[in-house]
Amino acid sequence: MTADALLPSREERATLWAEAIGQAESYFEGVESLPVAPALNQGELHALLDGFSFDNPGSRLDVLHRFTEELKRHQVHTPHPCYFGLFNPAPAFMGILGESIAATLNPQLAAWSHSPLAVETERRLIEAFAQKFGFSEGSADGCLTSGGAEANLTALLCALAERWPGVLDSGLQGVSARPVFYASAESHQSFLKAARTAGLGRGALRTVPVTDTLQMDCDALRQMIEEDRRLGYEPFLIVGTAGTTGAGIVDSLTAIGDVARANGLWFHVDAAWGGAAVLVPELRTALEGIEKADSITFDPHKLLSMPMGAGMFLTRHRKILNKIFSVSTAYMPKEGEGLAVVDPYIHSLQWSRRFIGLKLFLTLTTTGWSGYAEILRHQSEMADFLRERLEKSGWSVVNRTRLPVVCFTPSDEEWDIATHQCAADAVVQSGSAWISTIILRGEKPALRACITNYRTERQHIDTLLANLSKVRHDLSLRKRLDHKQLRARVRHHTRVPELPNASEFGRW
Amino acid sequence: MTADALLPSREERATLWAEAIGQAESYFEGVESLPVAPALNQGELHALLDGFSFDNPGSRLDVLHRFTEELKRHQVHTPHPCYFGLFNPAPAFMGILGESIAATLNPQLAAWSHSPLAVETERRLIEAFAQKFGFSEGSADGCLTSGGAEANLTALLCALAERWPGVLDSGLQGVSARPVFYASAESHQSFLKAARTAGLGRGALRTVPVTDTLQMDCDALRQMIEEDRRLGYEPFLIVGTAGTTGAGIVDSLTAIGDVARANGLWFHVDAAWGGAAVLVPELRTALEGIEKADSITFDPHKLLSMPMGAGMFLTRHRKILNKIFSVSTAYMPKEGEGLAVVDPYIHSLQWSRRFIGLKLFLTLTTTGWSGYAEILRHQSEMADFLRERLEKSGWSVVNRTRLPVVCFTPSDEEWDIATHQCAADAVVQSGSAWISTIILRGEKPALRACITNYRTERQHIDTLLANLSKVRHDLSLRKRLDHKQLRARVRHHTRVPELPNASEFGRW
Repeated sequence: MTADALLPSREERATLWAEAIGQAESYFEGVESLPVAPALNQGELHALLDGFSFDNPGSRLDVLHRFTEELKRHQVHTPHPCYFGLFNPAPAFMGILGESIAATLNPQLAAWSHSPLAVETERRLIEAFAQKFGFSEGSADGCLTSGGAEANLTALLCALAERWPGVLDSGLQGVSARPVFYASAESHQSFLKAARTAGLGRGALRTVPVTDTLQMDCDALRQMIEEDRRLGYEPFLIVGTAGTTGAGIVDSLTAIGDVARANGLWFHVDAAWGGAAVLVPELRTALEGIEKADSITFDPHKLLSMPMGAGMFLTRHRKILNKIFSVSTAYMPKEGEGLAVVDPYIHSLQWSRRFIGLKLFLTLTTTGWSGYAEILRHQSEMADFLRERLEKSGWSVVNRTRLPVVCFTPSDEEWDIATHQCAADAVVQSGSAWISTIILRGEKPALRACITNYRTERQHIDTLLANLSKVRHDLSLRKRLDHKQLRARVRHHTRVPELPNASEFGRW
Repeated sequence: MTADALLPSREERATLWAEAIGQAESYFEGVESLPVAPALNQGELHALLDGFSFDNPGSRLDVLHRFTEELKRHQVHTPHPCYFGLFNPAPAFMGILGESIAATLNPQLAAWSHSPLAVETERRLIEAFAQKFGFSEGSADGCLTSGGAEANLTALLCALAERWPGVLDSGLQGVSARPVFYASAESHQSFLKAARTAGLGRGALRTVPVTDTLQMDCDALRQMIEEDRRLGYEPFLIVGTAGTTGAGIVDSLTAIGDVARANGLWFHVDAAWGGAAVLVPELRTALEGIEKADSITFDPHKLLSMPMGAGMFLTRHRKILNKIFSVSTAYMPKEGEGLAVVDPYIHSLQWSRRFIGLKLFLTLTTTGWSGYAEILRHQSEMADFLRERLEKSGWSVVNRTRLPVVCFTPSDEEWDIATHQCAADAVVQSGSAWISTIILRGEKPALRACITNYRTERQHIDTLLANLSKVRHDLSLRKRLDHKQLRARVRHHTRVPELPNASEFGRW
């Protein structure tokens, strides 16, 4: 049977399942013993890929085994408990099973009638999260997305279409106003992509400065809106951020909401990462004001530990998504017509799409809100522990947030960005942990460590701290060496190329 | 440990893996014994979902078992060999394993340095498919997408930015021209969504009529371009379709390409489904002219049997994607800088995203181009068999295509759309097969059966044919009954509400 080319025999499948599960299990059990980040060697990667051919296919077992092993060798292990990185989760086990089931049954989420249970399940998730965020039952709507970028673009489109409904037919050129929108200097750059995608251009995105607390400066926001109006622009949207990528800062959502309402603007909150705080009673006050938003972006593939990609767009305006995305074709199933159902393909950017919600549903119905609260509380406590230990070890924490992202710099010396980068690189290259650098307010460099993994415990933070101390010591030694070399160089009027130039590390 | 909430013990995992695999295996082996489509009962679905709670979570094994069973009861089984439906595949086994591995290792495809092997693997796929489509090595570029809708939107953005580079900064309102683009009346409606998303509005999409062969009418196209120019519009893009959703028609790509070149317009080919023909020597001539395209949409989650979602955007313009999507942030990893690498997040609409390419890579390196050619050839043969049998059983095939989608109508009587719908519904409700209806050229209704499943064999087509005969016989009987009732009704001046009104079935 030809089908064998894509569906092996039952016996072979058993062997392949065993290999895949063996790989997964050895990963769960052994990820801590792997270097968190790989050596980056492009030539090696190319050579390795040359070992897999589309012309001369290999045996399934061999390819599955070899490629998975190589993938384990050549990626930053975001599921490693010492990955103190960007918002990439260690995936929840039920989430992994959810992906496997979704891939096996392959439900088509375009039309309600093709996968009625799947569509209704996502509907429950939308309703449940909308209520958690304080949207009133019955008015909320939304869709699951590939991630935050798609959700933020959706928000922009909603705000535009709500203000200028004609844009859907006549386009932006039919709008005599010059639309502009606002997000803080610390907001996510997906809004820049969204501005370009939506035909507004980057010029329409006004970057509002932040205060010393790295929150959107609401006075500046008000002035910018006024000034824009004076110049003939038409503000239509303000984006508040609940948990900036850089420093985990939550804008003053109540204040921004007030400005938006006073000016008749759409109020969107990008809570892609920080939105998870809504599940923890003692953290949710940080999100105060989010319940007044017109729309919210929230990514379960960040703090809810879902495998990529799982984003969510929520809005209190029930009709707007259909207005933007409605189309009508002869070939789409019509069985859902007349029922109180929504065909997802006329409700979001995507058309054919996977059952994004399954992994979240299986996790949430077995872990519960309470289980998530416990996990998130733990991550918050780990961040507190990290802050405490950093301050005891000669580092200053330079961001103020209740969310688990910690930005820090030496407390007794001033490092420039290159030195911070050098320190972060050294930690990453050690293989024992992953951290990164950040520049706050566009000027203040720092190291950045985020508790993004539910498996991170005190001992992992201790590993990071030990590593940081060593790196700092080495850099200090190197600085002294450099100075010595520099003096030698000055004496001998000669360059010493083997050693890094002091300027590479900048001002220490 | 808190982590247990998201990562069960090894022992529990073993039980859960066994359940998930048991479900998958019983699905592979037993899908044929399931009704292809479910009864649609929204109330039942709601009641069923009430049995799963986020407040009172259930045991993992119970939830996994119960929900998967319910999902099997409440979806159209696109992996069923008697699903003669839209382009939803029976997923390839290595594709399913690919999804499981991707979910487990959860590589982050935003930045090259986070998942260098994953990014390089997708690069190989892009290059390989670009070459298959006839793009010259070294000039091609592209990205993997959630599906065809994202790829088609990307094409629109590329065409706009190539023609008016200023649009990225100043937006469409900074463009004095009035952009318009062209796609045939049979093209995919994702272009309508794309027009709205990109700020052009639906008015910018010109619908070119089709000829009797359902191909874009190139004479009409030329006239429309001329007329638009006369009226002050600026054409910038023509979309050719390689395999329409309705009838599997391939536009005359060479002729469209000539019109595009003569007019200096971007030439995009939406080969989301039909593009797979490029892998079969005797079918690829149908795609002649595609090698001249500026960009191509191709969806491996259609004819290449990948689990949802896996789309692909290809272009011969190497720099354009980065121009549109480039952003620069302090927090994204910079380790890839200076290497000849591309960070996917500045190269496509998405930002954080899953390793879309893994499932395709694992399948292609074990099945090979040749294995796919064999599968696709088989599907094409099954379509030929279906056409032959239909014509022998009193049906006329009304579309002419070499691709495996077959549109047909009774050869000796004229059915209106309602009757076709009635017939399709009866087939679907029987549970033994799934077909749909289509209206060609906006006027000609037909039944539509597509070989979209690699497991479809002659006996499945026989099942469909037997079903169609029965349905036709029943409809004929009903018509006679209706006429009788009608006569009775006329005689008695009374309605007989128990029987459907003849008008529900329309003109037979």
